[in-house]
Formats: sequence, C-alpha cells, structure tokens
Amino acid sequence: MIKIGILGYGYWGPNLVRNFYGNKKFQIVKIADSRQERLDTVKRNYPQVETTLYPDDIINDSLIDAVAIATPVFTHFKFAKASLVQGKHVLLEKPMTSASHEAEELIELAEKRKLSLMVDHTFLYTAAVQKMKQLIDDDMIGKVKYLDSTRINLGLFQPDINVLWDLAPHDISILTHLISEKPYSLNATGVSHTNNGMENIAFLTINFESGLIAHFNCSWASPVKIRLMLIGGDKKMVVFNDLEPTEKIKIYDTGYTVKTDEEKRRLLVDYRTGDIFIPKTPSTEALALMAEDFAQSILNNKQPVSDFNSGLSVIKILEASNESIKNKGKEVIIK
Amino acid sequence: MIKIGILGYGYWGPNLVRNFYGNKKFQIVKIADSRQERLDTVKRNYPQVETTLYPDDIINDSLIDAVAIATPVFTHFKFAKASLVQGKHVLLEKPMTSASHEAEELIELAEKRKLSLMVDHTFLYTAAVQKMKQLIDDDMIGKVKYLDSTRINLGLFQPDINVLWDLAPHDISILTHLISEKPYSLNATGVSHTNNGMENIAFLTINFESGLIAHFNCSWASPVKIRLMLIGGDKKMVVFNDLEPTEKIKIYDTGYTVKTDEEKRRLLVDYRTGDIFIPKTPSTEALALMAEDFAQSILNNKQPVSDFNSGLSVIKILEASNESIKNKGKEVIIK
Amino acid sequence: MIKIGILGYGYWGPNLVRNFYGNKKFQIVKIADSRQERLDTVKRNYPQVETTLYPDDIINDSLIDAVAIATPVFTHFKFAKASLVQGKHVLLEKPMTSASHEAEELIELAEKRKLSLMVDHTFLYTAAVQKMKQLIDDDMIGKVKYLDSTRINLGLFQPDINVLWDLAPHDISILTHLISEKPYSLNATGVSHTNNGMENIAFLTINFESGLIAHFNCSWASPVKIRLMLIGGDKKMVVFNDLEPTEKIKIYDTGYTVKTDEEKRRLLVDYRTGDIFIPKTPSTEALALMAEDFAQSILNNKQPVSDFNSGLSVIKILEASNESIKNKGKEVIIK
Amino acid sequence: MIKIGILGYGYWGPNLVRNFYGNKKFQIVKIADSRQERLDTVKRNYPQVETTLYPDDIINDSLIDAVAIATPVFTHFKFAKASLVQGKHVLLEKPMTSASHEAEELIELAEKRKLSLMVDHTFLYTAAVQKMKQLIDDDMIGKVKYLDSTRINLGLFQPDINVLWDLAPHDISILTHLISEKPYSLNATGVSHTNNGMENIAFLTINFESGLIAHFNCSWASPVKIRLMLIGGDKKMVVFNDLEPTEKIKIYDTGYTVKTDEEKRRLLVDYRTGDIFIPKTPSTEALALMAEDFAQSILNNKQPVSDFNSGLSVIKILEASNESIKNKGKEVIIK
Repeated sequence: MIKIGILGYGYWGPNLVRNFYGNKKFQIVKIADSRQERLDTVKRNYPQVETTLYPDDIINDSLIDAVAIATPVFTHFKFAKASLVQGKHVLLEKPMTSASHEAEELIELAEKRKLSLMVDHTFLYTAAVQKMKQLIDDDMIGKVKYLDSTRINLGLFQPDINVLWDLAPHDISILTHLISEKPYSLNATGVSHTNNGMENIAFLTINFESGLIAHFNCSWASPVKIRLMLIGGDKKMVVFNDLEPTEKIKIYDTGYTVKTDEEKRRLLVDYRTGDIFIPKTPSTEALALMAEDFAQSILNNKQPVSDFNSGLSVIKILEASNESIKNKGKEVIIK
Repeated sequence: MIKIGILGYGYWGPNLVRNFYGNKKFQIVKIADSRQERLDTVKRNYPQVETTLYPDDIINDSLIDAVAIATPVFTHFKFAKASLVQGKHVLLEKPMTSASHEAEELIELAEKRKLSLMVDHTFLYTAAVQKMKQLIDDDMIGKVKYLDSTRINLGLFQPDINVLWDLAPHDISILTHLISEKPYSLNATGVSHTNNGMENIAFLTINFESGLIAHFNCSWASPVKIRLMLIGGDKKMVVFNDLEPTEKIKIYDTGYTVKTDEEKRRLLVDYRTGDIFIPKTPSTEALALMAEDFAQSILNNKQPVSDFNSGLSVIKILEASNESIKNKGKEVIIK
Repeated sequence: MIKIGILGYGYWGPNLVRNFYGNKKFQIVKIADSRQERLDTVKRNYPQVETTLYPDDIINDSLIDAVAIATPVFTHFKFAKASLVQGKHVLLEKPMTSASHEAEELIELAEKRKLSLMVDHTFLYTAAVQKMKQLIDDDMIGKVKYLDSTRINLGLFQPDINVLWDLAPHDISILTHLISEKPYSLNATGVSHTNNGMENIAFLTINFESGLIAHFNCSWASPVKIRLMLIGGDKKMVVFNDLEPTEKIKIYDTGYTVKTDEEKRRLLVDYRTGDIFIPKTPSTEALALMAEDFAQSILNNKQPVSDFNSGLSVIKILEASNESIKNKGKEVIIK
Repeated sequence: MIKIGILGYGYWGPNLVRNFYGNKKFQIVKIADSRQERLDTVKRNYPQVETTLYPDDIINDSLIDAVAIATPVFTHFKFAKASLVQGKHVLLEKPMTSASHEAEELIELAEKRKLSLMVDHTFLYTAAVQKMKQLIDDDMIGKVKYLDSTRINLGLFQPDINVLWDLAPHDISILTHLISEKPYSLNATGVSHTNNGMENIAFLTINFESGLIAHFNCSWASPVKIRLMLIGGDKKMVVFNDLEPTEKIKIYDTGYTVKTDEEKRRLLVDYRTGDIFIPKTPSTEALALMAEDFAQSILNNKQPVSDFNSGLSVIKILEASNESIKNKGKEVIIK
C-alpha cells in the first residue's frame, strides 16, 4: 500500500482525499492544512487519519511514500521540490507551478531520482475526453481545424492567479492531449475588474502551423455557467457539453470541403450536415481513474496520462499568455 | 407614397421586399437582379412589380424616390453613390461599404443633398435589443463591464468578405447602439480554411478606456448554431439568446463588487446571485420597424435608429480588425 | 391541372392555399370565406384567384375538380357531402367530421363515385413521423410497448370542440399510422374551465390487447408549449420533440428485458442504456407533400398516406373519448 | 441528543444516515440491514456506529429514542408498530405503509403514546415546493385550476409495488401540501410489462369538486428523465422543473379568463402572456431540513411539515388508484 500524505484541504483537497480513500492501493496517512477548522472536518470524517497544521510534518515523514499537493499555486514548487528531495512521489494540482523553469526543475529532479511526478489534469480522465481522444486517434474526425472552448460562470476570483491560470489549464491540457501537433504561437487579451490587476475575463487564441486554431473564453464574471467545447475536423465535428448530465459528447456528421477551382476566382465549398451520434460515456469518476493512474505510475512505472510533460506544456502556454496580455494581445511564440 | 426600387433579390432581398410591401407608406416599383430566375420568382409573387436585370434601370428612373441596396458588399458604394447623385434616398444592407472612406463619402453626399441614408442593422429594431437599450439607459444594469457574443453556425462561406464582415456587423452595431462610450482599440485573430484567404473563423476583442471589454466569436464552421450574447454590469447581467423562441432576454440579479482593502493584500469580492427576470418581448418583425424608420426619415426627417453613423462605426471597427488580423492580433487603435 | 377551390381562409386555410399554390399540378380557382376582410387579404396576395362569401359558389362550380375544406368541424360533413355529390374530389381538414357515421357516409359516397377523399393529417407527411414509421416497419424499435405524447400550450379555446378533438387528431393519426394493431379500448378524463362544458384539459389512454399502451396529454391551458412524444419498444426507444428545430428524432439504444424466473418470486429485469442516434431529417414542408399526395390520388388513383381510413379511425377514437369522459373515465371499447 | 437507529441501508438509507449524521441533535447509534456487505460499508464510513443484521436489535434497544425506517414498503407497518410499542419515535420512508388501515393504526398508537410519527416526503422540504406553497398561500397564483406532473425515467422496476406507489408519493404529497381542498375522486390506468402484474407505466387523474384537476404520469420505462410539474392558476402559472440545477421554478404571468356572454353562444376567453420570473431558491439539502423537522417534533412537540396526515392522505389515494386500475380506469371516490 502506498502511504500518502495530502497538503491542502480547501476546495479540491476533499475530492482528492475521497478518491485516494476509495482506492485500496493507497493509505492516507496524514493531511495538512493551515486552518484548524478544516482539520477538524477531516477528523470528523476520517477519524483514523492524522492531521497537522505544518506541511513539513508530511514532507519529512519518512513513512510516507507519496505526497499530493492541493495548496495555492505559488507554493507548488516549494512543496513539490522538498517532497522529491525527500524521495517521495508527487502529485500536483493544476496548474503545475507558477513558472516553467520551476516545472522543469521538478521534472529533472523526479527523473534523476526515478520518482513519479504527475499533475492532476482531471479532465484527461473523463469518459468524454477519452472518447474524443479515441475519435481523433482513429481518424474519425479527420484533420482537426479548430477547437473552441467556453468556460465561464460566476467563479471565485482567485487572489494570486488570473482567470486563465485558474480555468484554462482544463482546456489547454485537453488540447495538448488531443492534438499531437505542437502549438506555434498565441494571442491573449483580458481585463481585470479588481485592483490587483488579475484578469477575471480573458480570451486566448492558440495558433498552429497547420492552420488549426484553438480559442478559449474564460470568465469568472458570467451569470450563467457554460462548459462548452467544439472541435471541428474535416470529417466530423464534436460538441462536448460538460453540463449535460449524460449526453456530454455529440458527434456531428457535419463538414465543409473546399474545392480547388481552376480559375481561382470562385469559392467552391461543399457543405454536409448529416446524422448526429451520441456515444454512451460511462459515469466513472475521473478523479478515481487519476488516483489509479498515480498508483500505477508508482507501482509499475507506467507513464501516467496526465504526466509532467502535460503539466509543463500547460505552464508554457500560460506563461506565454501572460506575455501576450502584457503586450496588449501581441502574438507570442510558444517555446 | 414613397416609390422604392430594390437592388438584389438574393438571400436578403426577399425579406426587404416583403416588408416594404407590407408598409403602406411604400410602393415597390422595380426590382433588379442579375439572375433571370430570381426575377421570375418576383413576377410570380408580385405580378404588379417591374423587374430588370440592370441596376441602372432603377437608379436612373426619375419616378423612383428611394433605393434599397441588397447586393454584394463591394458594390454598395457604387450603387449608393449613383443613387444619391440621382437624388434618391438610400437604404444599404450591412455592412455599409467595403471601406470607411467610401462610407464617409456617401455620408457627405447624403448630407449635402439632404437625402436619407441609412444602414439596415436589423437587430437594432428587435424587441430584445430595444429592451437591453432601455435597461442600460435606465441604469438598471449599472456600469457595463463586458459584452460577450458568440455567433456561430455552419454558414455560407462568403467569397468576398471574411466571417467578421459577414456576421460581426450584427454584434458591433448592437454594441455601439447600447454603449455610448467610444471604443478605444481592438485585437482580432482568425484563420482561413479556404484558398482565398478569407477568415471563416475569427475572434474580435474590443477594448474601452473605462475597462469595458467586448468579445465576438464568429464562425461559419460550427456544427451547432449559437446566437448568445452576455452583458455584465455592476448591477445586473443580461443573457440574450436569440434562438429562444420567446424567452430571448434573461435579466440576472447577479453581480460582484470589488471592495477596497486597506492592507491591499487580500482580495475582497462580494458575489450576488439572485432572482432572474424574463421580460415579455413583443414579436413584431424587426424588419418592418426598420422599413417604417426609413419611411419616417424620408417623410419627416426623423433620424433613424440605424443611421449612417452606426453604419460608419461598424465599418471603422471592421477595417481595424482587418489590420489587426494582418498584424497577427496586434492591438489596433480605432479611429 | 387540377382546378381546386378552398373553403375557409381562417387559421389553416392560408397554409393550404400557399401549398396548393406552390404545386404545379393544382390551379387555385376560388376561395370562399364568410368574412370579407379575409377575402380582401386573398385578393391582395393572390390577385388572380376569385373569392366568394358563399361556399356553394365553389361546390356548384362545374369547372372545379376538387375542394379543400378548412371550415369549422361541424360543417365538414355538409360541405364534403355536397362536394362529392357534385363529383368533386375532397380534402378535409382534421378532424374529418363530427361523428363517425358522417365519415362513413362520406367514404361510401366517395367509393361509389370513385372520387378521392382524404383528410389532412399533416403530421403523417413530416420527415420525423416518416422516420419513425420506417424504424418500426424495419423492426429497429422492436415490439412497441408504449407511446406517450404531451401536446400542450396556451392554445385558442375552440367554441365547438374540446381539446381532444382539437389537438389529439395529430397524435392519434400518428399512432394509427405507426401501429398496425387495432386499438382495443380507451379511457378519457378531462375538465372544462369554461361555461360551455368543452374540456380544455384532457387525458386519453388507449389500450391494446398486446399490452401496448398509448397516452395523450392535451391542454390549451399551459404556460409553456410542449410537443413531446415518447415511443418505447423492446429494442429501442424514440423521443420525438417537434419543437427542436433540427434534432427532432432521437433514437435511444435503451431498453429493459424482463426475464422469466423459475421461482416466479423475484423480478429479473435487465436494463440497457447505450448510444443515442439522431438521424438527419429533411426539412421539406409536410403540407407540400400532403398536397402532392392529394394530387397523386386524383391523377393516378394512388392511395394517399392520410386516407379516409385514417380519418375514420381518428373519429372513432374521439367519439369513444367523448363517451368515456361523459362516464367519468370509464373504459370504452373502440368499435 | 436523540439516539437514533436506522433500519435499511439500501438505496435511500445512506442519505438518511448522512443527514442525521450532519445534524447535531442526533446521534446515530445503530444501523440494521440484512446484507452484510452493506454493513461493511457502514463500518468503513462510520466506524463509531454499530451495525446489525437484525432490526429487532434496534427496535428493542432501550437506549434508542427514535427509529428511521427505510426498508421495503411491506415491512413498514410491522417495524413502525413494534418501534412505537417500544416507545420510540418513528420516521417512515414514503410510502408510509402498504394500506391505509395500517397507517391509521400507527397514527392511533403514536397519538396514544405521544410519540412522533412522520413520513419522509422529502420534496415538501425543497426550496422549490416551499416557494410554490408560499405563492399559493399568498394568492399570487390565484385559484388553482390544474396540476400536471410527469415523473419518468428508466427506473428500477420494484418487485413489490407498482410505479405509482414508487414515484407518485412525491407528487401526491406535493399536491396535498399545496392544495387545501380535499381531493374528491380519481381515475388510474396503467400497464405491466412484467410477469408480476405490477404496473411499470401508469397515469393517475385526481378530480376535485371545485374543478381543479391533477394528473400524474409515472413511468420506469422512459429513455429520458423528466421531472416536470405545471401548476395553472387563474392569476399565474408555475413550471417546476426539478432537473434544472438552479432555475427550478418559473412563474409565468400567463392566464386565461373566461367571460360570461349574455347570449351564451359565443365563447369569450381573454388570454394573457406576460413576463416570467425565476425566484432564487436556496440550495439547502431538503433531507437536512426533514431531519431537523423530525428533531423539532421530538424535542419541542412541533407538528412536522411532512406529518402522518400527509402520509395517510398519500396512502388513501394510492389505495384508490389500485382499485381504479383493477376496475379498468373507473372513477373511485377517495375516502
């Protein structure tokens, strides 16, 4: 059994705890949080788990094999590095770190010490994303032309990161998971309605050399909740509505084909709208699969779906988005 | 009775004809189109209306008082100028012209000759937009912080204009109608999946000095049709779903207030979600009101809602969007 | 060309006129209505069509081959009989007549005189119903276990017929079209909120000997419009939502299989929920197909889809529903 | 603290346990279930709670003050009676008992012994139903003319009760909660697609002397889940869609007024469609309020909202529905 400690029992921590608790390969040994009332809740719900106000009590506990980190983003690097140094496997909440050089340092450390290091991009474990991945890999969608995602609601304004760092990791991790082509450049714009300068509404466009375009609309300031992703290929198109309780993925036999015209003057476009197919997607909790993937990476050296490369790609894109916003939307080449 | 001639009986022309036909202040005298089969349809449906293959038969007809122009955009300037020169009132389909200098020349000509010149920004005559205008003018919404519009479907790829010139005039005309503040700058990005280089997917962000941000997502390549506009004010928020048959406007008593914190370190945001109100909106056809507005501008010198200033503003923004797209999303100041 | 006259230019008449006008096998010669202002509208829209206040001007016009009757239900029999006697083909709006003996007399007369007699059950010509018919005939749905339809909105209270006679003909004609088994009995209940005793809310259950059950919920008193039909077979299930603009038919790979248990004590039910399929349905106007079917029945002796048997079946069920309502919901055997 | 024991840890039991656990007025002492694996789950989640395979271990435990019974319906009477005899307060899952004479015997016993006896009609504690109750009590809806509820999905076929006994208690308890008028009679029809004769699809109409009509459509055999209730008053109408995550209640300023016409021949109906209002409803868990209500009834002798009268009314209607179904839909007077 993997002995795991968990840092942070705020918004997401309880979900991690519930899923590690439900996985028999893990034993939750200790949970740390800086607020005593949260630890009291832990005590009430999981009387057998130790609690502590100090992360170091977990990081330095030699009986603990792995650490899951669900603290504010700016602390990720510090806690992850210390854990790796102590020889522990690490699971980080998204986004992985505050900067790509931090992520790279963690990756180097994990590789040197042969420790598991993964990022909880939960969406990669949903049946919906797995279905889309399969459709694209099986060439059912054809060449992907665009991906367009809207992720808005009246969300909690984060004090230390803007809305892209908060919400877009979901979409970016899906994008880089589905599309093997490396993104080329991006443009980002946004606005802050608070005095801390953190954008609460932002738009991100990612450009690919092949002509694929990806667009993300993120907001904490919408009266309605929307979680809608459209993917258009030259064979079929997919609509992923995460708020649908069961019919999350709709596959449209819809497309357009641009023909070459010898005179090059007229535009010849063939349109096609056909049947729609809604595959059944199992309702397994994604986080349970993520926990299992972490276990497999520790026990069997399996490369996890949401690995550190996925985490690093997301950070590089977010960093570039910062630069573009600072430069009023200017194109920034993604490193 | 205003004797009117109509140039173009393609996609939109029949709607114009039907509405001028239904307005007793107008008599449709002649309709021109370059395709004989369309004129045959006119003949069948309106036996008493003359038809012609040649626009000049209308422009030069001294019995005709007014000309409505629903031909391809690149011909707008030529036909409108000739009509004004002949002393005729002019209604132009959106977008007004291909370039702002053309629009300015038409405006100058119309003013000199004291002729009506208006643009058919139909949406300004819908009950939904009128309701939103009233809510904003009555300060029910508060200070507007953002406007976000998605206008996508599997649309007809236009050969001579990109998707912003085709679809965004609706949204831009609504924006400039609702918001009195002058837009400051914009960023636009997009992609063309055809060999003529016209973007079929494009995103436009318009920045205001007050911190208001407007965003438009336009596509001819979506498997689903979406016509959704969100407006967030610091008092209330509005969702305008044009595809809803009756409940087009929903007013959310939702908001967030950013407080000043003496320590300037913590972020204090007050959130509010409350009741929702769906005002009844009458189902009068907007185009009929537009036709009446054109009649009033001719007969009573009334300034129309969708006047040439509205038309020119839209063209200036579209021109700037071209420049931004050409410069890979760079910010462009709107003149 | 079939010379046709039309009786009634109220709610539905204009739709008939538009569709006969659009079919080149018909020439609309004359339209009768008791209100002069409606005839004025005809004159305006169809200057070449004669108008009259008197139905007999059509029925007795020896140049007219066929009569379409869109007058109040209680006049159907009188006008249809007179037209048949005058040797004219007859199309009746639904419901066919006020009583089954009237329908039977018309059928006998039409057969003796070898004239076409059909009823405008428009829904049978929709792509959605045709798709469902095909699915059932091809045994894709399996044995049909139930059909459940809700057809409610704030509708015009009819002065001479109750809500079942007004709305249920749509659903009953679909039922008898889809299901070859003869309905066995029915129960109907309802309530009248007016002083004329006509039910404005009513519920109808139709029982079949095979165990199939059909249920219809009809109301003129709902704040929302619902047009929803569910069909459950032992292989698949279908949801027909007529308010969906394009996705009217959804086919669910959902079912339950009841197993035989030797001990006869436990209930063994296997459930299955699987993929969903939304076939593309063409958007041809149903009424145009109905008009063409009427033409084919006249010109080529083809039996129309919505023939007099369909009309008579509906009337027999409506008659039985009257008897059941009068007897407070008692089961009535359908003759 | 009220020491409570819980009988049954199947489908609903865990919800009861969670909510009693979350209420500090209760201490869960013991949980009984006939399946050891369920008790193992209890042990895992609530290590401090005792478990037993035998209900009597709870019923006869003199330290226990109250018993919550979530076992199959046919066992309700037996366990509730034994608990009351042992001087314990009793909470019964819906439906209260298998027969009205049983419910009456329990009520008599509870009253004699001054013990709390209530039924878990959870919906009465939802914000949506409370809002509708308030609207009706404040005469905002006017005189209620109809209530129409559809409660269908692919549900678990129950072995011992039909679909009305399983699903309709929700709707009937809402009906009797909202409407003070006593229901007069009912009609019920249905069909069983299993060999045990239990209807899996059934329709129930309840008639009131005032002209109010209530209709319930219940099915375990629908491919889609619908939870939709419409209430029409002569002032306003309400739509309660329980599947909407936040906008559960919509109040329509819609109505019709029937006027008296001196000639008594014409039908004069005034229609009104106006604004729509969606009140904010708090998202408190209904079951938590139910648990608190049980506590208050025990500690402070407060009459609970979902009291035994509510339970008995539901049983009387369900009993009458059995009789009507057996008599092929015949009207049955409700005792």
